[in-house]
Amino acid sequence: MTVARKINEIMTRSSWIRKMFEEGARLKAVHGAANVFDFSLGNPSLPPPEKFNRILRDTVDACGLEDHCYMPQAGYPQVCASIAAYLTEEQGPDITCDEIIMTCGAAGALNVIFKTLLDPGDEVLTPVPCFVEYRFYADNHGGVLKTVNTRPDFTLDIDALKDAITAKTKAVLINSPNNPTGQIYSKTSLDELGRLIEQKSREFGHIIYLVADEPYRKIVFDGIRVPSIFRSYRESIIATSYSKDISIPGERIGFAAVNPAASFKNELMAGMTLSNRILGFVNAPALMQRVVACMQGISVDIDAYKRKRDLLCDGLVDAGYAFTKPSGAFYLFPQTPIADDVAFVKDLQQELILVVPGSGFSGPGHFRVAFCVEDETIVNALPGFRKVMQKYK
Amino acid sequence: MTVARKINEIMTRSSWIRKMFEEGARLKAVHGAANVFDFSLGNPSLPPPEKFNRILRDTVDACGLEDHCYMPQAGYPQVCASIAAYLTEEQGPDITCDEIIMTCGAAGALNVIFKTLLDPGDEVLTPVPCFVEYRFYADNHGGVLKTVNTRPDFTLDIDALKDAITAKTKAVLINSPNNPTGQIYSKTSLDELGRLIEQKSREFGHIIYLVADEPYRKIVFDGIRVPSIFRSYRESIIATSYSKDISIPGERIGFAAVNPAASFKNELMAGMTLSNRILGFVNAPALMQRVVACMQGISVDIDAYKRKRDLLCDGLVDAGYAFTKPSGAFYLFPQTPIADDVAFVKDLQQELILVVPGSGFSGPGHFRVAFCVEDETIVNALPGFRKVMQKYK
Repeated sequence: MTVARKINEIMTRSSWIRKMFEEGARLKAVHGAANVFDFSLGNPSLPPPEKFNRILRDTVDACGLEDHCYMPQAGYPQVCASIAAYLTEEQGPDITCDEIIMTCGAAGALNVIFKTLLDPGDEVLTPVPCFVEYRFYADNHGGVLKTVNTRPDFTLDIDALKDAITAKTKAVLINSPNNPTGQIYSKTSLDELGRLIEQKSREFGHIIYLVADEPYRKIVFDGIRVPSIFRSYRESIIATSYSKDISIPGERIGFAAVNPAASFKNELMAGMTLSNRILGFVNAPALMQRVVACMQGISVDIDAYKRKRDLLCDGLVDAGYAFTKPSGAFYLFPQTPIADDVAFVKDLQQELILVVPGSGFSGPGHFRVAFCVEDETIVNALPGFRKVMQKYK
Repeated sequence: MTVARKINEIMTRSSWIRKMFEEGARLKAVHGAANVFDFSLGNPSLPPPEKFNRILRDTVDACGLEDHCYMPQAGYPQVCASIAAYLTEEQGPDITCDEIIMTCGAAGALNVIFKTLLDPGDEVLTPVPCFVEYRFYADNHGGVLKTVNTRPDFTLDIDALKDAITAKTKAVLINSPNNPTGQIYSKTSLDELGRLIEQKSREFGHIIYLVADEPYRKIVFDGIRVPSIFRSYRESIIATSYSKDISIPGERIGFAAVNPAASFKNELMAGMTLSNRILGFVNAPALMQRVVACMQGISVDIDAYKRKRDLLCDGLVDAGYAFTKPSGAFYLFPQTPIADDVAFVKDLQQELILVVPGSGFSGPGHFRVAFCVEDETIVNALPGFRKVMQKYK
């Protein structure tokens, strides 16, 4: 072992995930990629909106001598201003460019936020199931991710949260629409959460921040709108990206927005700008900053994701699977008919179906199906899903 | 204080730097930016090579449906392969795509490397003067940056390095051509350094890595070539970017390369790929990866930087300044005629000349002049430089 102990541990612990991916790759090599039903990755299947290609070309054509140079580390002021104007509409309060920092995606934003907030041992509390990487993002900066259960339908359990917040809690991290469940937290539950955190902040004598990871905000179905945390709790920060709503995850472009009403807004922004610099991000990619500034309020064809969701949900209900129908994002998180979700996922692999065990998301007894795939992948996988379920009926 | 103690400390400690920048901004507001001689930033003044604009446009025109999606986290295999082929020429040993990981610039690469290597308390040893950010990059991952003096001409002092390496040293970090001195380390001194680290690794029973931060490799003058560390020491890793050689620092694109002869090459690559992911970089920006793959061996007009260096050096010699003439990069690091370099830099500000005190680079008694500026900025600033020096003669 030559690498850091922590890196070695992560590599060892996650070896079963690697094995599953290797098995997936093996299956594709043997059977041909087209014959394997890969639902394992959250890589958007829809192309970017046509406007993106036009804006990208126009932005490149308009590039001047200094357009690939360093800019202020929080991002181009005019880009932040465009985003602030749109956010003001979307989130409610008046937001200015002084509350926005451009980042290398939402993952970059979350690391910048945690680097800025966390002292060693500080806790970040998050409802589970949750995105696999949160644990690392907190740990990278000396923090500790603590998890708290949600209700059976994956909505917030305010009582459980109340019991889980301690004197060490520095932030509560939510992700709505949620990866891996697709659940969206209601305005009522966010208001309750805001009141709870405010009360606990008073009780423990320090501000507990509410951080919302929102890359799936625009991917919502059935007319639902994702409520703004800025209206439910003033000490709040949003982390998000353009990865999912305009299908450009490889470009690493997103931002963090601090609630304009936050008590220490300027200190937070200064700290986050410093963190963006010293973590080695330095600034969000220049060209894509200017591109996304022109893409405010635009997203891929959400109806296409809805169609995929319905195809998958209808098919899996027919096949005997139980799940909460997702209101957003492009994931379904059904229950496994046996407790051992890894074993069940291996069974699905026998049918050339690749999904991820719920254990990976702190949601054992489930599995995640990423339905950002071609419609026919869903249709053609359904017999396999049915066959495996029948084994346990 | 609501931010982490460490962030608060850094913000407080660096307040004098901020004050200098604020004073610079004030001077520009009062006198007009064109009348202020700003030598404070390493922002390349030359436009990207014409080929870059063509390649960027062609790459955008050729974008397919999946070209902004996630790719393997080490980067597109074909991009890594292009770079490996060029590196094989440049560095000597046969390098393949398996030794390359694409990163968000050299700053991203260094953070990925340190995250992968450092256990809490591990030391990174670097010759000074050095780039301001190294201290943070080590500290981000629980490491400690230790500095060791160079010789008066800023070349490596092998005896000093020998005394400075301890049982806690996990890596030696060098930067050649150097920011802020422009010094380039000779093949002989790198061979000596390699032998020293090898001996110390044996003595302390663990591998000490040699990490080379090389963003200025192509900006060299007077026919000098930067020797490859891969030929001087097998346990070595290069971090670099396209920021300076093709003037695209805002795009955040670079890579790390592990010596193909490194004992734990695969473990290092796996650890670095994991670190790239969990630090929130996820992957280097997709579009720029494909662009730089086509820019191998191409750089801006180095003669233009040489002309600027000569203009500045000739002028400052005339004005009575003492310095080691830089062989590479675009920085000059003259001595201040008084010990207090911050006071001297303030004197220069009175003449509307903005430079950075050497103390910021652990090189007190000096100041850094970034000569990546218009020729006339240099010419027009020389009377001011002369006037301030005369005050102390």
